[in-house]
Amino acid sequence: MTLHILKVGGKVIDDLALLRPILEAFLEKEGKKIIVHGGGKKASELSEKLGIPVQMVNGRRITDLAALEVATMVYAGLFNKQIVALLQSIGGNALGLSGADGNVILAHQRPVKEIDYGYVGDLDEVNAPAIHRLLNADFTPVFCAITHNGQGQLLNTNADTIASQLATAMSALYEVKLYLCLDKNGVLANAEDDSTVIPRMNETDYGQLKEQGVVYAGMLPKLDNAFEALRQGVKEVIICGPESVCQGGGTVIYSD
Amino acid sequence: MTLHILKVGGKVIDDLALLRPILEAFLEKEGKKIIVHGGGKKASELSEKLGIPVQMVNGRRITDLAALEVATMVYAGLFNKQIVALLQSIGGNALGLSGADGNVILAHQRPVKEIDYGYVGDLDEVNAPAIHRLLNADFTPVFCAITHNGQGQLLNTNADTIASQLATAMSALYEVKLYLCLDKNGVLANAEDDSTVIPRMNETDYGQLKEQGVVYAGMLPKLDNAFEALRQGVKEVIICGPESVCQGGGTVIYSD
Repeated sequence: MTLHILKVGGKVIDDLALLRPILEAFLEKEGKKIIVHGGGKKASELSEKLGIPVQMVNGRRITDLAALEVATMVYAGLFNKQIVALLQSIGGNALGLSGADGNVILAHQRPVKEIDYGYVGDLDEVNAPAIHRLLNADFTPVFCAITHNGQGQLLNTNADTIASQLATAMSALYEVKLYLCLDKNGVLANAEDDSTVIPRMNETDYGQLKEQGVVYAGMLPKLDNAFEALRQGVKEVIICGPESVCQGGGTVIYSD
Repeated sequence: MTLHILKVGGKVIDDLALLRPILEAFLEKEGKKIIVHGGGKKASELSEKLGIPVQMVNGRRITDLAALEVATMVYAGLFNKQIVALLQSIGGNALGLSGADGNVILAHQRPVKEIDYGYVGDLDEVNAPAIHRLLNADFTPVFCAITHNGQGQLLNTNADTIASQLATAMSALYEVKLYLCLDKNGVLANAEDDSTVIPRMNETDYGQLKEQGVVYAGMLPKLDNAFEALRQGVKEVIICGPESVCQGGGTVIYSD
Protein backbone atom coordinates (compact mmCIF):
# COMPACT_ATOMS: atom_id res chain seq x y z
CA MET A 1 0.00 0.00 0.00
CA THR A 2 1.14 3.56 -0.67
CA LEU A 3 1.87 5.87 2.24
CA HIS A 4 2.04 9.58 1.36
CA ILE A 5 4.03 11.74 3.76
CA LEU A 6 3.68 15.51 3.40
CA LYS A 7 6.08 17.93 5.07
CA VAL A 8 4.82 21.52 5.37
CA GLY A 9 6.44 24.47 7.04
CA GLY A 10 7.08 28.17 6.81
CA LYS A 11 4.44 30.65 5.74
CA VAL A 12 1.66 28.10 5.10
CA ILE A 13 1.80 27.19 8.81
CA ASP A 14 1.24 30.81 9.81
CA ASP A 15 -1.75 31.17 7.48
CA LEU A 16 -4.36 28.40 7.60
CA ALA A 17 -6.05 29.87 4.51
CA LEU A 18 -2.91 28.99 2.53
CA LEU A 19 -2.63 25.58 4.15
CA ARG A 20 -6.21 24.49 3.58
CA PRO A 21 -6.10 23.86 -0.23
CA ILE A 22 -2.79 22.03 0.19
CA LEU A 23 -4.31 19.67 2.75
CA GLU A 24 -7.50 19.27 0.70
CA ALA A 25 -5.46 18.16 -2.31
CA PHE A 26 -3.28 15.91 -0.18
CA LEU A 27 -6.28 14.14 1.38
CA GLU A 28 -7.46 13.13 -2.09
CA LYS A 29 -4.47 10.88 -2.64
CA GLU A 30 -5.16 7.14 -2.59
CA GLY A 31 -3.58 5.30 0.33
CA LYS A 32 -2.50 6.14 3.86
CA LYS A 33 -1.29 9.63 4.77
CA ILE A 34 0.97 11.29 7.32
CA ILE A 35 1.60 15.01 7.73
CA VAL A 36 4.69 16.54 9.34
CA HIS A 37 4.72 20.23 10.14
CA GLY A 38 7.46 22.59 11.12
CA GLY A 39 6.93 25.87 12.83
CA GLY A 40 6.07 29.27 11.49
CA LYS A 41 7.00 32.66 12.85
CA LYS A 42 4.79 32.27 15.88
CA ALA A 43 7.40 30.65 18.15
CA SER A 44 9.84 33.51 17.59
CA GLU A 45 7.06 36.06 18.04
CA LEU A 46 5.94 34.45 21.28
CA SER A 47 9.52 34.25 22.58
CA GLU A 48 9.94 37.92 21.81
CA LYS A 49 6.71 38.89 23.58
CA LEU A 50 7.79 36.87 26.61
CA GLY A 51 11.23 38.46 26.60
CA ILE A 52 12.96 35.13 25.91
CA PRO A 53 16.02 35.88 23.79
CA VAL A 54 16.29 33.81 20.59
CA GLN A 55 19.81 32.39 20.85
CA MET A 56 21.54 31.47 17.62
CA VAL A 57 24.99 29.94 17.15
CA ASN A 58 26.27 29.44 13.58
CA GLY A 59 22.74 29.93 12.26
CA ARG A 60 21.38 27.25 14.58
CA ARG A 61 18.93 27.95 17.30
CA ILE A 62 19.80 27.10 20.90
CA THR A 63 16.91 25.62 22.84
CA ASP A 64 17.11 26.43 26.54
CA LEU A 65 14.30 25.36 28.88
CA ALA A 66 12.25 28.51 28.24
CA ALA A 67 12.65 28.09 24.47
CA LEU A 68 11.65 24.42 24.74
CA GLU A 69 8.47 25.40 26.58
CA VAL A 70 7.64 27.91 23.85
CA ALA A 71 8.35 25.34 21.11
CA THR A 72 6.19 22.75 22.87
CA MET A 73 3.36 25.24 23.30
CA VAL A 74 3.46 26.54 19.74
CA TYR A 75 4.34 23.39 17.76
CA ALA A 76 2.67 20.62 19.79
CA GLY A 77 -0.13 22.86 21.03
CA LEU A 78 -1.26 25.68 18.78
CA PHE A 79 -0.08 24.64 15.30
CA ASN A 80 -0.64 20.93 15.75
CA LYS A 81 -4.20 21.31 17.06
CA GLN A 82 -5.11 23.99 14.52
CA ILE A 83 -3.94 21.70 11.70
CA VAL A 84 -5.72 18.69 13.21
CA ALA A 85 -8.98 20.64 13.60
CA LEU A 86 -8.64 21.95 10.02
CA LEU A 87 -8.09 18.42 8.68
CA GLN A 88 -11.08 17.12 10.63
CA SER A 89 -13.24 19.83 9.05
CA ILE A 90 -12.29 18.70 5.52
CA GLY A 91 -12.70 14.98 6.00
CA GLY A 92 -9.30 13.86 7.27
CA ASN A 93 -9.32 11.84 10.49
CA ALA A 94 -6.21 13.57 11.81
CA LEU A 95 -4.48 12.64 15.05
CA GLY A 96 -1.78 14.98 16.32
CA LEU A 97 1.44 13.53 17.65
CA SER A 98 4.65 14.56 19.27
CA GLY A 99 7.35 11.91 19.45
CA ALA A 100 6.29 11.23 23.05
CA ASP A 101 2.72 10.31 22.09
CA GLY A 102 2.58 6.56 21.73
CA ASN A 103 6.38 6.71 21.97
CA VAL A 104 6.39 7.15 18.19
CA ILE A 105 9.75 8.94 17.94
CA LEU A 106 12.65 8.54 20.34
CA ALA A 107 15.55 10.97 20.33
CA HIS A 108 18.46 11.91 22.55
CA GLN A 109 19.67 15.31 23.56
CA ARG A 110 22.40 16.43 21.18
CA PRO A 111 25.75 15.88 22.94
CA VAL A 112 27.66 19.00 23.86
CA LYS A 113 30.77 19.46 21.71
CA GLU A 114 31.77 22.98 20.72
CA ILE A 115 28.19 24.11 21.11
CA ASP A 116 25.56 23.24 23.70
CA TYR A 117 22.37 23.26 21.68
CA GLY A 118 20.30 22.72 24.81
CA TYR A 119 17.11 20.69 24.52
CA VAL A 120 17.59 19.75 20.87
CA GLY A 121 16.90 16.16 19.91
CA ASP A 122 18.74 13.97 17.42
CA LEU A 123 16.60 11.04 16.30
CA ASP A 124 17.24 7.53 17.57
CA GLU A 125 14.23 5.58 16.46
CA VAL A 126 10.96 5.88 14.59
CA ASN A 127 8.47 3.43 16.10
CA ALA A 128 7.08 2.10 12.81
CA PRO A 129 4.86 -0.58 14.43
CA ALA A 130 3.07 2.02 16.62
CA ILE A 131 2.56 4.34 13.64
CA HIS A 132 1.35 1.37 11.61
CA ARG A 133 -1.24 0.62 14.33
CA LEU A 134 -2.51 4.20 14.11
CA LEU A 135 -2.68 4.09 10.30
CA ASN A 136 -4.49 0.74 10.51
CA ALA A 137 -6.99 2.26 12.94
CA ASP A 138 -7.75 4.78 10.15
CA PHE A 139 -6.09 7.80 11.69
CA THR A 140 -4.00 10.31 9.74
CA PRO A 141 -1.06 11.11 12.03
CA VAL A 142 0.05 14.76 12.15
CA PHE A 143 3.56 15.10 13.56
CA CYS A 144 4.98 18.20 15.12
CA ALA A 145 8.71 18.62 15.62
CA ILE A 146 8.78 17.81 19.33
CA THR A 147 10.20 14.44 20.39
CA HIS A 148 11.23 12.87 23.69
CA ASN A 149 14.09 10.81 25.11
CA GLY A 150 11.96 8.16 26.85
CA GLN A 151 13.04 9.45 30.25
CA GLY A 152 10.51 12.23 30.49
CA GLN A 153 12.42 14.93 28.61
CA LEU A 154 10.81 16.62 25.60
CA LEU A 155 13.20 17.71 22.86
CA ASN A 156 13.00 20.24 20.03
CA THR A 157 13.73 18.45 16.76
CA ASN A 158 14.18 19.37 13.11
CA ALA A 159 10.96 18.76 11.15
CA ASP A 160 12.76 17.90 7.89
CA THR A 161 14.72 15.21 9.69
CA ILE A 162 11.53 13.82 11.22
CA ALA A 163 9.87 13.70 7.79
CA SER A 164 12.77 11.90 6.10
CA GLN A 165 13.34 9.47 8.99
CA LEU A 166 9.62 8.70 9.09
CA ALA A 167 9.67 8.07 5.34
CA THR A 168 12.65 5.77 5.67
CA ALA A 169 11.29 3.80 8.63
CA MET A 170 7.83 3.37 7.13
CA SER A 171 9.33 2.09 3.86
CA ALA A 172 9.66 -1.32 5.51
CA LEU A 173 5.85 -1.51 5.58
CA TYR A 174 4.63 0.75 2.78
CA GLU A 175 5.55 2.14 -0.62
CA VAL A 176 6.40 5.63 0.64
CA LYS A 177 6.12 8.88 -1.29
CA LEU A 178 7.56 11.88 0.54
CA TYR A 179 6.31 15.35 -0.47
CA LEU A 180 8.46 18.28 0.61
CA CYS A 181 6.32 21.40 0.27
CA LEU A 182 8.74 24.31 -0.17
CA ASP A 183 8.27 27.86 -1.43
CA LYS A 184 8.87 27.18 -5.14
CA ASN A 185 6.78 24.74 -7.13
CA GLY A 186 9.64 22.30 -7.61
CA VAL A 187 13.27 22.28 -8.66
CA LEU A 188 13.59 25.02 -11.29
CA ALA A 189 15.75 24.83 -14.43
CA ASN A 190 15.88 28.61 -14.21
CA ALA A 191 15.71 29.93 -10.66
CA GLU A 192 14.22 33.19 -11.97
CA ASP A 193 11.34 31.49 -13.78
CA ASP A 194 8.71 29.63 -11.79
CA SER A 195 7.38 27.94 -14.91
CA THR A 196 10.59 25.94 -15.45
CA VAL A 197 9.91 23.13 -12.98
CA ILE A 198 11.98 20.04 -13.80
CA PRO A 199 9.32 17.28 -13.78
CA ARG A 200 11.50 14.26 -12.96
CA MET A 201 15.06 13.73 -11.79
CA ASN A 202 17.16 10.66 -11.09
CA GLU A 203 20.68 10.64 -9.66
CA THR A 204 22.29 10.81 -13.13
CA ASP A 205 20.20 13.87 -13.99
CA TYR A 206 21.14 15.38 -10.63
CA GLY A 207 24.84 14.93 -11.33
CA GLN A 208 24.51 16.68 -14.68
CA LEU A 209 22.38 19.52 -13.28
CA LYS A 210 24.92 20.10 -10.51
CA GLU A 211 27.76 20.13 -13.05
CA GLN A 212 25.89 22.62 -15.21
CA GLY A 213 25.25 24.80 -12.17
CA VAL A 214 21.48 24.54 -12.69
CA VAL A 215 20.89 23.36 -9.11
CA TYR A 216 22.97 24.99 -6.41
CA ALA A 217 23.03 26.54 -2.96
CA GLY A 218 20.11 25.68 -0.64
CA MET A 219 18.67 23.11 -3.04
CA LEU A 220 21.75 20.85 -2.82
CA PRO A 221 21.31 19.55 0.75
CA LYS A 222 17.60 19.00 0.11
CA LEU A 223 18.34 16.95 -3.01
CA ASP A 224 21.18 15.09 -1.31
CA ASN A 225 18.73 14.16 1.47
CA ALA A 226 16.13 13.14 -1.11
CA PHE A 227 18.52 10.76 -2.87
CA GLU A 228 19.67 9.42 0.49
CA ALA A 229 16.00 8.69 1.35
CA LEU A 230 15.66 6.79 -1.93
CA ARG A 231 18.73 4.73 -1.07
CA GLN A 232 17.07 3.93 2.30
CA GLY A 233 13.99 2.52 0.59
CA VAL A 234 11.71 5.52 0.00
CA LYS A 235 9.95 5.13 -3.37
CA GLU A 236 9.77 8.78 -4.47
CA VAL A 237 10.52 12.22 -3.05
CA ILE A 238 8.46 15.01 -4.55
CA ILE A 239 9.79 18.55 -4.23
CA CYS A 240 6.76 20.77 -4.56
CA GLY A 241 5.25 24.08 -3.51
CA PRO A 242 1.87 25.30 -2.28
CA GLU A 243 0.45 25.34 -5.82
CA SER A 244 2.09 22.28 -7.30
CA VAL A 245 1.12 19.98 -4.42
CA CYS A 246 -2.49 20.78 -5.29
CA GLN A 247 -2.04 20.21 -9.00
CA GLY A 248 0.01 17.04 -8.76
CA GLY A 249 3.10 18.82 -10.09
CA GLY A 250 6.51 19.42 -8.60
CA THR A 251 9.77 17.62 -9.21
CA VAL A 252 9.68 13.86 -8.73
CA ILE A 253 12.99 12.51 -7.43
CA TYR A 254 13.22 8.84 -8.26
CA SER A 255 15.75 6.03 -8.47
CA ASP A 256 16.13 3.87 -11.54
CA MET B 1 -13.01 -5.20 31.19
CA THR B 2 -12.37 -2.40 33.64
CA LEU B 3 -11.51 1.08 32.37
CA HIS B 4 -10.00 3.42 34.95
CA ILE B 5 -10.38 7.13 34.20
CA LEU B 6 -8.33 9.55 36.32
CA LYS B 7 -9.03 13.27 36.37
CA VAL B 8 -6.19 15.44 37.69
CA GLY B 9 -5.96 19.20 37.90
CA GLY B 10 -4.79 22.11 39.99
CA LYS B 11 -1.47 22.12 41.76
CA VAL B 12 -0.35 18.63 40.72
CA ILE B 13 -0.40 19.83 37.09
CA ASP B 14 1.95 22.69 37.91
CA ASP B 15 4.40 20.40 39.68
CA LEU B 16 5.37 17.20 37.89
CA ALA B 17 7.13 15.95 41.04
CA LEU B 18 3.71 15.85 42.75
CA LEU B 19 2.05 14.28 39.71
CA ARG B 20 4.58 11.49 39.20
CA PRO B 21 3.67 9.23 42.19
CA ILE B 22 -0.02 9.67 41.37
CA LEU B 23 0.51 8.46 37.83
CA GLU B 24 2.82 5.66 38.96
CA ALA B 25 0.11 4.35 41.30
CA PHE B 26 -2.57 4.78 38.65
CA LEU B 27 -0.60 2.82 36.04
CA GLU B 28 -0.53 -0.18 38.38
CA LYS B 29 -4.28 -0.68 38.16
CA GLU B 30 -5.46 -3.72 36.20
CA GLY B 31 -7.32 -2.89 33.00
CA LYS B 32 -7.37 -0.02 30.51
CA LYS B 33 -6.63 3.54 31.59
CA ILE B 34 -7.46 7.08 30.51
CA ILE B 35 -6.18 10.30 32.05
CA VAL B 36 -7.91 13.67 31.83
CA HIS B 37 -6.08 16.77 32.94
CA GLY B 38 -7.22 20.28 33.60
CA GLY B 39 -4.96 23.27 33.67
CA GLY B 40 -2.78 24.70 36.37
CA LYS B 41 -1.78 28.28 36.97
CA LYS B 42 0.36 28.41 33.85
CA ALA B 43 -2.37 29.59 31.46
CA SER B 44 -3.20 32.57 33.66
CA GLU B 45 0.50 33.33 34.15
CA LEU B 46 1.13 33.19 30.42
CA SER B 47 -1.89 35.39 29.68
CA GLU B 48 -0.60 37.91 32.19
CA LYS B 49 2.89 37.93 30.71
CA LEU B 50 1.40 38.44 27.24
CA GLY B 51 -0.82 41.25 28.49
CA ILE B 52 -4.01 39.31 27.70
CA PRO B 53 -6.60 40.28 30.32
CA VAL B 54 -8.26 37.32 32.12
CA GLN B 55 -11.94 38.11 31.68
CA MET B 56 -14.32 36.67 34.25
CA VAL B 57 -18.13 37.00 34.38
CA ASN B 58 -19.95 35.49 37.39
CA GLY B 59 -16.81 33.54 38.28
CA ARG B 60 -16.62 32.05 34.79
CA ARG B 61 -13.78 32.70 32.45
CA ILE B 62 -14.48 34.26 29.05
CA THR B 63 -12.40 32.75 26.26
CA ASP B 64 -11.68 35.23 23.49
CA LEU B 65 -9.45 34.27 20.57
CA ALA B 66 -6.24 35.27 22.38
CA ALA B 67 -7.29 33.32 25.48
CA LEU B 68 -8.16 30.28 23.32
CA GLU B 69 -4.67 30.38 21.78
CA VAL B 70 -3.12 30.48 25.25
CA ALA B 71 -5.33 27.61 26.46
CA THR B 72 -4.45 25.54 23.37
CA MET B 73 -0.74 26.21 23.84
CA VAL B 74 -0.68 25.47 27.56
CA TYR B 75 -3.22 22.63 27.86
CA ALA B 76 -2.83 20.80 24.52
CA GLY B 77 0.84 21.71 24.17
CA LEU B 78 2.87 22.14 27.32
CA PHE B 79 0.88 20.24 29.99
CA ASN B 80 -0.33 17.48 27.71
CA LYS B 81 3.09 16.70 26.28
CA GLN B 82 4.83 16.97 29.66
CA ILE B 83 2.35 14.49 31.14
CA VAL B 84 2.66 12.17 28.13
CA ALA B 85 6.47 12.24 28.30
CA LEU B 86 6.33 11.62 32.07
CA LEU B 87 3.99 8.64 31.58
CA GLN B 88 6.23 7.22 28.86
CA SER B 89 9.18 7.41 31.24
CA ILE B 90 7.35 5.32 33.87
CA GLY B 91 5.98 2.61 31.59
CA GLY B 92 2.67 4.05 30.41
CA ASN B 93 2.16 4.12 26.64
CA ALA B 94 0.46 7.52 26.77
CA LEU B 95 -1.05 9.24 23.74
CA GLY B 96 -2.10 12.87 24.16
CA LEU B 97 -5.43 13.98 22.74
CA SER B 98 -7.50 17.08 22.28
CA GLY B 99 -11.08 16.50 21.18
CA ALA B 100 -10.01 17.25 17.61
CA ASP B 101 -7.47 14.41 17.51
CA GLY B 102 -9.18 11.42 15.98
CA ASN B 103 -12.39 13.48 16.36
CA VAL B 104 -12.68 11.96 19.84
CA ILE B 105 -14.79 14.75 21.39
CA LEU B 106 -17.17 17.00 19.52
CA ALA B 107 -18.53 20.17 21.09
CA HIS B 108 -20.32 23.33 20.03
CA GLN B 109 -19.59 26.88 20.97
CA ARG B 110 -21.77 27.85 23.93
CA PRO B 111 -24.70 29.89 22.60
CA VAL B 112 -24.76 33.55 23.61
CA LYS B 113 -27.53 34.30 26.08
CA GLU B 114 -26.86 36.89 28.79
CA ILE B 115 -23.15 36.18 28.54
CA ASP B 116 -20.95 35.56 25.51
CA TYR B 117 -18.43 33.06 26.83
CA GLY B 118 -16.46 33.20 23.59
CA TYR B 119 -14.71 30.05 22.43
CA VAL B 120 -16.05 27.81 25.19
CA GLY B 121 -17.31 24.40 24.15
CA ASP B 122 -20.29 22.45 25.48
CA LEU B 123 -19.97 18.75 24.74
CA ASP B 124 -22.02 17.10 22.02
CA GLU B 125 -20.49 13.69 21.63
CA VAL B 126 -17.76 11.45 22.94
CA ASN B 127 -16.57 9.21 20.11
CA ALA B 128 -16.43 5.98 22.11
CA PRO B 129 -15.56 3.75 19.11
CA ALA B 130 -12.48 5.86 18.24
CA ILE B 131 -11.32 5.86 21.87
CA HIS B 132 -11.97 2.12 22.01
CA ARG B 133 -9.71 1.66 18.95
CA LEU B 134 -6.91 3.56 20.71
CA LEU B 135 -7.33 1.54 23.91
CA ASN B 136 -7.35 -1.66 21.86
CA ALA B 137 -4.13 -0.57 20.18
CA ASP B 138 -2.64 -0.44 23.72
CA PHE B 139 -2.41 3.30 24.07
CA THR B 140 -3.30 5.18 27.27
CA PRO B 141 -5.16 8.29 26.08
CA VAL B 142 -4.36 11.54 27.90
CA PHE B 143 -7.07 14.14 27.32
CA CYS B 144 -6.61 17.86 27.68
CA ALA B 145 -9.58 20.19 27.96
CA ILE B 146 -9.54 21.44 24.37
CA THR B 147 -12.23 20.17 22.01
CA HIS B 148 -13.45 21.14 18.51
CA ASN B 149 -16.70 21.69 16.69
CA GLY B 150 -15.91 19.58 13.62
CA GLN B 151 -15.76 22.70 11.46
CA GLY B 152 -12.20 23.63 12.26
CA GLN B 153 -12.82 25.60 15.46
CA LEU B 154 -11.02 24.61 18.65
CA LEU B 155 -12.95 25.20 21.88
CA ASN B 156 -11.95 25.56 25.53
CA THR B 157 -13.87 23.01 27.57
CA ASN B 158 -14.30 22.11 31.23
CA ALA B 159 -12.06 19.19 32.19
CA ASP B 160 -14.47 17.81 34.83
CA THR B 161 -17.23 17.66 32.22
CA ILE B 162 -14.90 15.87 29.80
CA ALA B 163 -13.99 13.32 32.49
CA SER B 164 -17.59 12.57 33.45
CA GLN B 165 -18.86 12.47 29.84
CA LEU B 166 -15.97 10.19 28.88
CA ALA B 167 -16.82 7.92 31.82
CA THR B 168 -20.47 7.80 30.82
CA ALA B 169 -19.82 7.18 27.12
CA MET B 170 -17.23 4.48 27.73
CA SER B 171 -19.58 2.66 30.14
CA ALA B 172 -21.28 1.13 27.10
CA LEU B 173 -18.05 -0.79 26.42
CA TYR B 174 -16.27 -1.09 29.78
CA GLU B 175 -16.85 -1.29 33.51
CA VAL B 176 -15.76 2.27 34.24
CA LYS B 177 -14.23 3.57 37.46
CA LEU B 178 -13.81 7.34 37.53
CA TYR B 179 -11.20 8.78 39.92
CA LEU B 180 -11.51 12.47 40.73
CA CYS B 181 -8.22 13.58 42.24
CA LEU B 182 -8.97 16.65 44.35
CA ASP B 183 -7.05 18.42 47.13
CA LYS B 184 -8.39 16.37 50.05
CA ASN B 185 -7.99 12.62 50.31
CA GLY B 186 -11.71 11.97 49.94
CA VAL B 187 -15.02 13.18 51.35
CA LEU B 188 -14.33 14.06 54.97
CA ALA B 189 -16.70 13.41 57.87
CA ASN B 190 -14.98 16.34 59.57
CA ALA B 191 -13.73 18.96 57.10
CA GLU B 192 -11.05 19.99 59.61
CA ASP B 193 -9.62 16.49 59.97
CA ASP B 194 -7.96 14.86 56.97
CA SER B 195 -8.02 11.46 58.68
CA THR B 196 -11.85 11.27 58.60
CA VAL B 197 -12.27 10.10 55.01
CA ILE B 198 -15.64 8.41 54.49
CA PRO B 199 -14.64 5.15 52.76
CA ARG B 200 -17.89 4.39 50.88
CA MET B 201 -21.07 6.27 50.11
CA ASN B 202 -24.27 5.37 48.29
CA GLU B 203 -27.15 7.72 47.54
CA THR B 204 -28.92 6.93 50.83
CA ASP B 205 -25.76 7.76 52.78
CA TYR B 206 -25.41 10.95 50.74
CA GLY B 207 -28.94 12.05 51.63
CA GLN B 208 -28.23 11.54 55.33
CA LEU B 209 -24.84 13.26 55.22
CA LYS B 210 -26.40 16.25 53.46
CA GLU B 211 -29.17 16.41 56.06
CA GLN B 212 -26.65 16.26 58.89
CA GLY B 213 -24.66 19.04 57.24
CA VAL B 214 -21.58 16.80 57.02
CA VAL B 215 -21.17 17.41 53.28
CA TYR B 216 -21.87 20.90 52.04
CA ALA B 217 -20.71 23.75 49.81
CA GLY B 218 -18.30 22.85 46.99
CA MET B 219 -18.56 19.11 47.61
CA LEU B 220 -22.30 19.04 46.75
CA PRO B 221 -22.08 19.61 42.97
CA LYS B 222 -19.19 17.13 42.75
CA LEU B 223 -21.22 14.46 44.55
CA ASP B 224 -24.36 15.28 42.56
CA ASN B 225 -22.31 14.79 39.37
CA ALA B 226 -20.86 11.56 40.73
CA PHE B 227 -24.31 10.08 41.43
CA GLU B 228 -25.52 11.30 38.02
CA ALA B 229 -22.55 9.45 36.44
CA LEU B 230 -23.60 6.27 38.29
CA ARG B 231 -27.13 6.64 36.96
CA GLN B 232 -25.63 6.93 33.45
CA GLY B 233 -23.85 3.60 33.80
CA VAL B 234 -20.51 4.42 35.46
CA LYS B 235 -19.63 1.66 37.92
CA GLU B 236 -17.89 3.69 40.64
CA VAL B 237 -16.71 7.24 41.21
CA ILE B 238 -13.77 7.57 43.58
CA ILE B 239 -13.19 10.95 45.22
CA CYS B 240 -9.53 10.97 46.15
CA GLY B 241 -6.50 13.19 46.65
CA PRO B 242 -2.82 13.08 45.74
CA GLU B 243 -2.06 10.72 48.64
CA SER B 244 -5.13 8.52 48.63
CA VAL B 245 -4.99 7.80 44.90
CA CYS B 246 -1.59 6.24 45.56
CA GLN B 247 -2.75 4.23 48.54
CA GLY B 248 -6.00 2.99 47.05
CA GLY B 249 -8.01 5.11 49.48
CA GLY B 250 -10.49 7.89 48.95
CA THR B 251 -14.27 7.83 49.05
CA VAL B 252 -15.92 5.28 46.78
CA ILE B 253 -19.26 6.52 45.45
CA TYR B 254 -21.35 3.52 44.42
CA SER B 255 -24.91 2.58 43.60
CA ASP B 256 -26.66 -0.34 45.22
